[in-house]
Amino acid sequence: MASLQNGHSKKKLDVAVVGAGLVGSLEALYLAKRGHRVRLYEYRDDIRQTPLVRGRSINLALSVRGRKALKGVGLEDHMINKHGIPMRGRMIHRLDGSTYDIPYDARTNQCIYSVGRNYLNSLLLEESEKYENVERHFNHKLLEANLRSGSLTFVKTESNETVRVSADLTIGADGAFSAVRKAMMKQPLFDYSQKYIEHGYLELCIPADENGGFQMPANYLHIWPRGEFMMIALPNQDCSWTVTLFMPFEKFKSIENEEKLIAFFTQYFPDSIPLIGRQKLVEDFFAGKPSPLVAVKCRPYHVEDKALIIGDASHAVVPFYGQGMNAGFEDCTILDQLFEKYDDNIKDILEEFSATRWEDTFAISDLAMYNYIEMRDLVTRPSYRLRKAVDDFIFWLVPDFWVPLYNSVTFTTMPYSQCVRNRQWQNKVLMYSLLFFGFSIFAFLYAKR
Amino acid sequence: MASLQNGHSKKKLDVAVVGAGLVGSLEALYLAKRGHRVRLYEYRDDIRQTPLVRGRSINLALSVRGRKALKGVGLEDHMINKHGIPMRGRMIHRLDGSTYDIPYDARTNQCIYSVGRNYLNSLLLEESEKYENVERHFNHKLLEANLRSGSLTFVKTESNETVRVSADLTIGADGAFSAVRKAMMKQPLFDYSQKYIEHGYLELCIPADENGGFQMPANYLHIWPRGEFMMIALPNQDCSWTVTLFMPFEKFKSIENEEKLIAFFTQYFPDSIPLIGRQKLVEDFFAGKPSPLVAVKCRPYHVEDKALIIGDASHAVVPFYGQGMNAGFEDCTILDQLFEKYDDNIKDILEEFSATRWEDTFAISDLAMYNYIEMRDLVTRPSYRLRKAVDDFIFWLVPDFWVPLYNSVTFTTMPYSQCVRNRQWQNKVLMYSLLFFGFSIFAFLYAKR
Repeated sequence: MASLQNGHSKKKLDVAVVGAGLVGSLEALYLAKRGHRVRLYEYRDDIRQTPLVRGRSINLALSVRGRKALKGVGLEDHMINKHGIPMRGRMIHRLDGSTYDIPYDARTNQCIYSVGRNYLNSLLLEESEKYENVERHFNHKLLEANLRSGSLTFVKTESNETVRVSADLTIGADGAFSAVRKAMMKQPLFDYSQKYIEHGYLELCIPADENGGFQMPANYLHIWPRGEFMMIALPNQDCSWTVTLFMPFEKFKSIENEEKLIAFFTQYFPDSIPLIGRQKLVEDFFAGKPSPLVAVKCRPYHVEDKALIIGDASHAVVPFYGQGMNAGFEDCTILDQLFEKYDDNIKDILEEFSATRWEDTFAISDLAMYNYIEMRDLVTRPSYRLRKAVDDFIFWLVPDFWVPLYNSVTFTTMPYSQCVRNRQWQNKVLMYSLLFFGFSIFAFLYAKR
Repeated sequence: MASLQNGHSKKKLDVAVVGAGLVGSLEALYLAKRGHRVRLYEYRDDIRQTPLVRGRSINLALSVRGRKALKGVGLEDHMINKHGIPMRGRMIHRLDGSTYDIPYDARTNQCIYSVGRNYLNSLLLEESEKYENVERHFNHKLLEANLRSGSLTFVKTESNETVRVSADLTIGADGAFSAVRKAMMKQPLFDYSQKYIEHGYLELCIPADENGGFQMPANYLHIWPRGEFMMIALPNQDCSWTVTLFMPFEKFKSIENEEKLIAFFTQYFPDSIPLIGRQKLVEDFFAGKPSPLVAVKCRPYHVEDKALIIGDASHAVVPFYGQGMNAGFEDCTILDQLFEKYDDNIKDILEEFSATRWEDTFAISDLAMYNYIEMRDLVTRPSYRLRKAVDDFIFWLVPDFWVPLYNSVTFTTMPYSQCVRNRQWQNKVLMYSLLFFGFSIFAFLYAKR
């Protein structure tokens, strides 16, 4: 049996990866490194050919899970040291324009990195050119998929030509509105949920100053928390900031003209108006429509030994924990570990991935939902700051024993579900400590009498 | 403005109802009564032409919400007095074959009715023949739907011919795997979840005795609660019983041959073997495969003033509260009230239905999930029976003030979400009463000293 499995494992797989975004491109590299043949199919044009719109490149927060995954393909160093902009904490903007910062990790000064999505995606694709066993096919839209037989039909969006492909393994890394997942939904016993939050987002931009420098302190994730809504800003390589306004759709709708927009910004984000520029604010605000935010949960992630979905296709999360890309990249790391563990025996790999990964992706999805409330509202409250101070203090005293939730999610590779259980345990400890403390004071006062 | 709306309302709508099952057929009657033109499209053959398999007709529990909806089209009396078999409580079968009963409503002896699905469906279709403004089209499968424009494409399953239809309003009543809902999923901001439980179900049958009578006391819903799994039986008009075994799929799989089946039944359901008949048990058990059970939640239920989903299409629930059909029928009652309230102004009707109905359907979905644990496990526990005794006692004392959860769900038309809030309030009252009672005893003992 062992030799039979071994025999199986030595077969190099023919893998079709649908989606050449961040996660698909990275997964292609991992598979290529193991010697499998990889064909990458992407609906859009090659991102390397697409000119960047200056200052509008969307950026993302890269943290430890994502870094580990990039390290596995030799790209961590480049992204961190040549491209990423470290963010060491949150910089909170009060209504009056004054600010204060909350470090992510006051103890060891760990940070997250603001990276450009297009830059990172291009880097991954460029790296894949080094492998002879990777092919890239852009402008290929998945039309139909028979996952059990591994036959895929694409239409070339430029010529309308149809292409039929067959693969040993189909990996869907085609995002929150995944076409591969859609095909998977026809399977019996497939649990699925998509949930839109009531808030949409709209991107604005703070350009570099006259000297080409940053207009705000660069090494922070800037937040304007306003209770029911919030604005954030992440730094870009060209010293501009990508600013994102998160707000209920109804609220967006109510701001219907320039006058109302300026009144709204003057009331809630006064310090941002000169930074963005009044004219640019008006232009950008009314140029686009707010986009929706969706969270997707599903399981299982695989179909027999023939298909798998990863990244946003299997677990799109709302962006408030900065873990969407990191969780997708972690899928690739975990898969690579399973390829190692099961000696490339695909059936065992997919089954274990499906059986174990969902618990962690469900956990980060819930955490991200919750963190929205923290970021836009709780972060300004004394109770939040007290808890953070207590957490940070114990963390400083006994760092191996007490890792605060944000730090375990962002700066460790502890499974997300374990991070949540860890936090629940910490809550209990603090509650009992408070009770004990209360009793002690009572006993002390009573004894004195 | 009022006159304009009035003008709108007087227009008779051209409605396409997709699905001529229980809910679709009933909705067609309600719409026809209001004078709208209704075309009913059904994927399957006319159920009135389909011969019944004796003793395998699936039965359902009809309770107050369903009765009220039938009353609105003049069919309640027939179903209750000519066809339905009253079930006045649960009859629990212990492992040793002994039984005891738990009445649903010891106070006023209210009951639920076991009705045949096919019979009721046929009755509704037959009733629709009385209306000139209802057309029935069987063997029509929905192929494509453009809900915004109201254009539907069906394929006739017998001739493979394609039929294009346009309608002012499309109502999807096409069940848990609804094709109309699938078209609706393409709308932005559509929340959706489907969840399969780990248990499947398989139907067996207890035939009538030699004299054509019932082999068990007829006026009960019989339950064999066994913790991780359970079996139930509902009476049929022909004195047979439809028996349903609910069990984890894994457990079904482990019973792979006759020997194991008989051993299993001998261990857990010994009294049922002579009733079902050993030979028939083996035949029926291995004739079918266990079916999955899915719960569907989604929102919104409508697309502009053009489309709506009702019944299982919008809120399929697991069957453990006996409310699936009743909730679907209640959709029809509520819609009819809204047609009245808004004088047939379809935009307002759909918007209010969508905005308000989900809270109640989500509530019954959660209740049904929970009730599975109650039925298969908790029902046998002393704590459950104590609570039920307390509930029943207070109910008996102050019936207007204290309606137990099961009774409010089953024997009233209180909105499902209100039933849940009501129960939460009762829990609080009982908890505080217990605390008060504890303190009183303490005070009494202390004062005595």
